Amino acid sequence: MRLIVQKYGGTSVATSERIRNVARRLVETQREGCRVMAVISAMAGVTDDLIKLAHEISEHPAERELDILLATGEHAATALVAMAVNALGGRAISVTGAQAGILTDRKHTKARIANISPKQIHELLLDDYIVVVAGFQGQTPEGETTTLGRGGSDLTAIALAGALNADVCQIFTDVDGVFTCDPRAVLAAKKLDEIAYDELLEMAGAGSKVVQSRAVEFAKKFGVQFEVRSSFNRNVGTIAKAETASMEDVVIRGISLDRHQAKLTIAGVPDEPGIAGRIFSNIAAAHIIVDMIVQNASIGGTTDISFTIHEDELENARKILMPVVGEIGAKRLNTASGMAKLSVVGIGMRSHSGVAARLFECLGRSGINIQLVSTSEIKITVIIDEKDAERAAQLIHAEFGLAGLVPAARGTAAFA
Amino acid sequence: MRLIVQKYGGTSVATSERIRNVARRLVETQREGCRVMAVISAMAGVTDDLIKLAHEISEHPAERELDILLATGEHAATALVAMAVNALGGRAISVTGAQAGILTDRKHTKARIANISPKQIHELLLDDYIVVVAGFQGQTPEGETTTLGRGGSDLTAIALAGALNADVCQIFTDVDGVFTCDPRAVLAAKKLDEIAYDELLEMAGAGSKVVQSRAVEFAKKFGVQFEVRSSFNRNVGTIAKAETASMEDVVIRGISLDRHQAKLTIAGVPDEPGIAGRIFSNIAAAHIIVDMIVQNASIGGTTDISFTIHEDELENARKILMPVVGEIGAKRLNTASGMAKLSVVGIGMRSHSGVAARLFECLGRSGINIQLVSTSEIKITVIIDEKDAERAAQLIHAEFGLAGLVPAARGTAAFA
Repeated sequence: MRLIVQKYGGTSVATSERIRNVARRLVETQREGCRVMAVISAMAGVTDDLIKLAHEISEHPAERELDILLATGEHAATALVAMAVNALGGRAISVTGAQAGILTDRKHTKARIANISPKQIHELLLDDYIVVVAGFQGQTPEGETTTLGRGGSDLTAIALAGALNADVCQIFTDVDGVFTCDPRAVLAAKKLDEIAYDELLEMAGAGSKVVQSRAVEFAKKFGVQFEVRSSFNRNVGTIAKAETASMEDVVIRGISLDRHQAKLTIAGVPDEPGIAGRIFSNIAAAHIIVDMIVQNASIGGTTDISFTIHEDELENARKILMPVVGEIGAKRLNTASGMAKLSVVGIGMRSHSGVAARLFECLGRSGINIQLVSTSEIKITVIIDEKDAERAAQLIHAEFGLAGLVPAARGTAAFA
Repeated sequence: MRLIVQKYGGTSVATSERIRNVARRLVETQREGCRVMAVISAMAGVTDDLIKLAHEISEHPAERELDILLATGEHAATALVAMAVNALGGRAISVTGAQAGILTDRKHTKARIANISPKQIHELLLDDYIVVVAGFQGQTPEGETTTLGRGGSDLTAIALAGALNADVCQIFTDVDGVFTCDPRAVLAAKKLDEIAYDELLEMAGAGSKVVQSRAVEFAKKFGVQFEVRSSFNRNVGTIAKAETASMEDVVIRGISLDRHQAKLTIAGVPDEPGIAGRIFSNIAAAHIIVDMIVQNASIGGTTDISFTIHEDELENARKILMPVVGEIGAKRLNTASGMAKLSVVGIGMRSHSGVAARLFECLGRSGINIQLVSTSEIKITVIIDEKDAERAAQLIHAEFGLAGLVPAARGTAAFA
């Protein structure tokens, strides 16, 4: 009999009505002749409320206690889903991460899975239970509750699917799958039938988070194929899988767009060891997240260092950097907000030459100025004016033939 | 070193501010040179919210899942209290009922404690941790989470205090202790320094619930002395203990008052076996809670059966009983709402004769009509008009010399 693992996120179990919907899907899936395991996140908002409460009580809550606190969100949601299945005449049982055999290291709040012993859930599945597992959590060898970090339920589902050798692993979310681009920016954006793990990872890094990155890394490492699909309709989603030869035929898989970026350039930086460290340690101390960093070749003993941050942090970063610029003997600090980051991602880049040139020419023909460039093996990222962002995405989408015959529904894409 | 067990109810941990107060008390108690164990209930309202959610999802939620759901309330509260202690520089650790070694039978939602193995918390206490235990819960021999019924945290505290042979067990609540009467009815009501377990049990049955009855029964069985006191001030509370010879010197310990009662009398009931069963099975099927039942000696082959219910249920009960009266061949049904139940409780009744006569005379002198009477070994209960209730309580309070020198503060009594 086929074993299906279905993971439902917080928005999919946000209300009692939605919990009943999830239960209906689980029961239907079982009636189609499958063994069914569900992995459930806390109801939307619950985890944030608990974190807020913890911080009201303590500036630095003990991480052991924080894990016990946060894990209650998933415990409650699994019990409710199990009740809902039972109310439909199904036969469900809720289990904690510990009962599911998820053994982790001792790093509270961001534990890593060390081992999985799914004996108990395996037996429950053979006994025809719909097994409802609390996502996001595990336990240490000493039996202490741990959590797997934000989005950890994805990891729970993929890891258990791998350990149980499940036939199908479905990540249900509030979007229809992974799209070639955000349909709000590009009407012709198309849902992808499949995507390579590496592409999904690069897209997540470029602001298109649909599955937790660590979960994708885990899936890649253990070869667990999974589908990202919506819990609000019956549409087929996007399959994430190991890359195949035919996948390289597609030059680029998708475009992701990150708005509200600011660009900072420190010009005339003396080309000496330790200078970059001084700049970024000051920024890091203020908890400002730096995204792209670009440093050009040194000319005449000085170089320029550029980087991007969210534009809300620009004023803060300026204040921090102004004295640093003087201290390190750099010439000046230039800043600009209203930027957008546009990335094209595709494993096809490895075998197709000239992708960057084609991208730059496409933008150049339309008078869109490229301000920074950074590349990885399967990604090219450019910083452009935010006002050009949508037009740029549309032009590139067309240039690389990403448009399909069926335009995506608005507002239901992973690029939202 | 002395071991103190402190139990804090839902109102004592209702907000982050109150949780910090609880933490302060725990840390102070430890600094006074004690080992400290806290038993914590879910934050006020949380359990009700979870039950509401469960019933939105399922008319009859699976009790196993309900227990997992409800236990999360205490898990969260204990983690928050432990965080608050740590934030004050104390050293706390939260443990579940299972980790505290509370083993129960398999009766989900109303489990009974079968055994306690407090080895783990004993070691943590020796290691100078403030051990914060989730109240209201335990586990079956198979490791399934169970809950101990409403008010079960009292039982957790008293049972653990017994198992650990604690020097002191304090039940913190939102009232100052157990009073001779509700100070809102009798200004001169006095907080009791001590009360016998049996008296506390009879008072709970008479509408003055301050500690879960099963917890008091457990305390009585195992001789666990405990104090009921307020978490909102530093006042000494009331000690519940096994009765001593000197306790019998006091004729009555307290008066409890239950308003909004209705009285129903079925007159001329044929004195045949099975008739009472027919009457009350109909009432029970409608989930109406019957309180007092009084049946007089049969005269001429018929008898009268009276009983009391909450007056909100009167119309419902009338509708159910009207046809029954005809079927059983009774003469008629008389009903009246606006009644009050007044009970006087005291183990002194066993050795003092004439307590009932003195009570009846006291009321009679003031023209207060007694409509029903029922007695147990240490309690006399009368039904009177609700309009006479306060006056009756004041008269009896004075008659039996319950008034102390220090009048109780308004609105902080267990009789509230």
